[in-house]
Amino acid sequence: MDLWNVSERQPTAATAFEMGARQREISVSEFFLRNRHLLGFDTPSKALITAVKEAVENALDACEEAGILPEIAVQIHNRYGGKWRVVVEDNGPGIVEGQIARIFGKLLYGSKFHKLSQSRGQQGMGISAAGMYGQLTVGKPLHIISRIEGNELANELYVSIDTAKNRPDIHKKKQLKWDRAHGTRVSIEMEGLYQKGPHSIEVYLKQSAIANPHATVVFQAPNGEEIRFERSIDELPPRPREIKPHPYGIELGRLIQMLSETPSRTLMQFLVDEFSSVGKKTGSEIIARAGKQLTARSHPKHIARAQASALHQAIQHTRISAPRTDCIVPIGEQRLLDGLRKELQADFHTVATRPAAVYRGNPFQVEVAIAYGRPEDAGFELDDSGHMHRKNTASEHLIARRNEPVRLLRFANRVPLLYQQSSCAITKAVVQTNWRAYGLQQTKGAIPIAPMGILVHVASVWVPYTSESKEAVAPYPEILKEIRLGLQQCGRKLAHYLRRRMQLQREYERRIYIEKYLPHIGIALQEILELTDEERDSAVSRLDDVLHKSRKT
Amino acid sequence: MDLWNVSERQPTAATAFEMGARQREISVSEFFLRNRHLLGFDTPSKALITAVKEAVENALDACEEAGILPEIAVQIHNRYGGKWRVVVEDNGPGIVEGQIARIFGKLLYGSKFHKLSQSRGQQGMGISAAGMYGQLTVGKPLHIISRIEGNELANELYVSIDTAKNRPDIHKKKQLKWDRAHGTRVSIEMEGLYQKGPHSIEVYLKQSAIANPHATVVFQAPNGEEIRFERSIDELPPRPREIKPHPYGIELGRLIQMLSETPSRTLMQFLVDEFSSVGKKTGSEIIARAGKQLTARSHPKHIARAQASALHQAIQHTRISAPRTDCIVPIGEQRLLDGLRKELQADFHTVATRPAAVYRGNPFQVEVAIAYGRPEDAGFELDDSGHMHRKNTASEHLIARRNEPVRLLRFANRVPLLYQQSSCAITKAVVQTNWRAYGLQQTKGAIPIAPMGILVHVASVWVPYTSESKEAVAPYPEILKEIRLGLQQCGRKLAHYLRRRMQLQREYERRIYIEKYLPHIGIALQEILELTDEERDSAVSRLDDVLHKSRKT
Repeated sequence: MDLWNVSERQPTAATAFEMGARQREISVSEFFLRNRHLLGFDTPSKALITAVKEAVENALDACEEAGILPEIAVQIHNRYGGKWRVVVEDNGPGIVEGQIARIFGKLLYGSKFHKLSQSRGQQGMGISAAGMYGQLTVGKPLHIISRIEGNELANELYVSIDTAKNRPDIHKKKQLKWDRAHGTRVSIEMEGLYQKGPHSIEVYLKQSAIANPHATVVFQAPNGEEIRFERSIDELPPRPREIKPHPYGIELGRLIQMLSETPSRTLMQFLVDEFSSVGKKTGSEIIARAGKQLTARSHPKHIARAQASALHQAIQHTRISAPRTDCIVPIGEQRLLDGLRKELQADFHTVATRPAAVYRGNPFQVEVAIAYGRPEDAGFELDDSGHMHRKNTASEHLIARRNEPVRLLRFANRVPLLYQQSSCAITKAVVQTNWRAYGLQQTKGAIPIAPMGILVHVASVWVPYTSESKEAVAPYPEILKEIRLGLQQCGRKLAHYLRRRMQLQREYERRIYIEKYLPHIGIALQEILELTDEERDSAVSRLDDVLHKSRKT
Repeated sequence: MDLWNVSERQPTAATAFEMGARQREISVSEFFLRNRHLLGFDTPSKALITAVKEAVENALDACEEAGILPEIAVQIHNRYGGKWRVVVEDNGPGIVEGQIARIFGKLLYGSKFHKLSQSRGQQGMGISAAGMYGQLTVGKPLHIISRIEGNELANELYVSIDTAKNRPDIHKKKQLKWDRAHGTRVSIEMEGLYQKGPHSIEVYLKQSAIANPHATVVFQAPNGEEIRFERSIDELPPRPREIKPHPYGIELGRLIQMLSETPSRTLMQFLVDEFSSVGKKTGSEIIARAGKQLTARSHPKHIARAQASALHQAIQHTRISAPRTDCIVPIGEQRLLDGLRKELQADFHTVATRPAAVYRGNPFQVEVAIAYGRPEDAGFELDDSGHMHRKNTASEHLIARRNEPVRLLRFANRVPLLYQQSSCAITKAVVQTNWRAYGLQQTKGAIPIAPMGILVHVASVWVPYTSESKEAVAPYPEILKEIRLGLQQCGRKLAHYLRRRMQLQREYERRIYIEKYLPHIGIALQEILELTDEERDSAVSRLDDVLHKSRKT
């Protein structure tokens, strides 16, 4: 058999030239249009939630960046058949006219990718992807109104994506009067399915309220019901600052590229200016360790591959302080506790905040909170018109019932993650933790069983999501480790609470027991010692006191 | 509290104009460079396997398209520290010079995205992503040699990606003599970690051999050992044909776009030409159902939204035959069985092929195979130089041991899927199947426990992967259903085998039991009936016969 003999080609076989002629560029919009599940638009119910989520996250980011306390209105209208209109309106700073079309009509376009600081959006895809999905399923462009403070009129645009070119198509554009002083309103028509339950717009908004206690969100459900998530804090979280990458975790190839692109004229200046946590002292240590061919005055552009490789090694072996953490803004222990207490009532709450850490040069920080014990069924309440409503239905999905696996509330940069739980670093860390040590039921490799909710927040200048739909955090070892440590901290406090609760329980039972039998002992003593009734009662009372004291010590 | 009052802005707050000025386009390479885990390059060991996989799949696709029986050589060399060189060489048709740089140095560039027919590659990302990862971690360009049959010389290029522009950078380019008549050789230097075990290059190649019995792959491991996966069939699988989309599952927006872009001048021509499975008869039915405003002669470009919507509805309610299936090439029952028997010895094998089905207009087909029962430990063998080797180590990862969860061998378009098992449609279908009904142990919602391997192959003109790294099939309901049905078919045959085996086992045990006690019965009979030794032996012998016969009926 001669492998190199191609005389037996099948009739339809192609030559290298025919194959070459078929090669073409693929537009990023075409790619994601065909792979819309990568962006979170795989099923109609998920698509509806994803669209709301993308619009709300954009609104929150814009408000915070402009220093405005967010007030967001979300509306869902059923149009016909499975077709819906999603409207999200914010009090943000508005969008300058020239940018509107590209922000809503082009994938991979945005302001957050090229800087290292914490934000909800990262990749400039979410809202234009939602628009593209609407375009695909209903065939109508996005409708946008946006007004900048001080401008007399708002801009109104209808925008779709030219998917073959990943470019916005503007269908109509005009200026109009709008009663908002500033803000943006986006309206998308799309195929969808409105559902209640653990994967619902309500649960998403409720989780979002826990992580964003400074935002007010008003949701108008399809049945006309208005659900308000009021802010509990009238203060914005501190603004995250932009930082440079940390030298740990910078890959050799990236270092070489940075050396060739830097405006710095000396190696020392390069190290100090292009990285965080490197001062002159650390810079000197790195350079000394990198070998004799490099000095503080070496010109970055003239550093050869071998020297760059030595420099890369030297960085890994030099002690460099942890990155500045003001590029990350955790929710904060008190705010987390307040948020949890407000949105889900439980018997016991605890929070742990880990110090900032680094993966691949990116600072990140983990917060963990636990809510244990579920009050009895929240029950029903009457509204003003005398109708009975089940109370707090969304909470039901946040704390597990007895004998159910613990509910996970996963967050990344204050955004609730609702899907792909099994592939998330947070789930993996929960599963890897030995909860039996803290008094819970758990089969190996599974989520523990308890009436409990575990909240984990991963905040980072760049969250590594497992897909563009941003539904799960990729399990980088450094991130897994920090989550595990946070879970352990909370687990120890939970164990303490459970032990104490069990002690109280036992003591209560013992007390009941003694109270039941003490009169009988009294009667027995009376018979044996021939006591009067008074003597008997006094003995019983003293006995009770003594036993009571002995239990207390 | 006046929400519209922004006088309390924080000092660092940005105006809409400042925010607008920061908006920028993000290159698709930059995006994936930062999100390299999306492409399968999250850990060093996975990166090495992913690079091999991408190069091997490209080689297989190219050979098959050109009608050449694939012969592929894979080499892994350790360079220094954690740095590796991966070399993959094929006997494919070669690549025309003008395309080499773009194929290896640009993401989203390829020949397979824009046609509907089954191939391993889809998105034009894999090999350039591997190159980009090498560039990031080691800083060296890809090295490519390619020769087209009939050309005297081969082309040699060094190519990297200009990530800011997603464009190839050619570093060196020349022509040279090459001993291959035709083929391509790609060499990547990259950070990596070489590991054995279930996630290893060996296991990937072994699984690939099962699904591609027409390919020979020779792997040279870092220790110099050569592992050959010889082809067992000297015939290429039939070439899949390109098809048009099936009308079911076409979204309204896409239909509107197709109407506006078609060269067809009548609605009837449009339906017949642009879709598969639509002839004049089905076309007439659709048009009749779409209402009076549309006729067979309506001009596609003049069809308004409301009419398009009626047309869309009509398509969903018209009976349209299943798509042609020659766009999909399953492995085939006999070939699958042969491949399984060759690569993993088991006591029982069975295969089920589902008829082709459609999701979102894309035809797909599911094949399921089961290998049950594991021979005793494969043991050791001596090689020519007298060294002892463990036999068949890669097989150990393909059939579970007793008391272990069943091993899943997941394939999409003949490509083994090694990672992200938990998020794959195949896993979800296995978990949703009630294996207890077929005689296996299974806890609800878990993979069954048995000494077994389950192979599932999803072949489609467009496999919906859960991420760009193509490690898991997205769980579209139509795909889940077909996999479940295939599993059930195999499950029933397995149950039959297991019942039969259990019967034989019981019979064997009864036989042993009888053989053991029959002599004692003989002696007892002799005493009771006062038989001679001959009479006793004859009675025992007849008794044995009778019992033997009664068991057989």
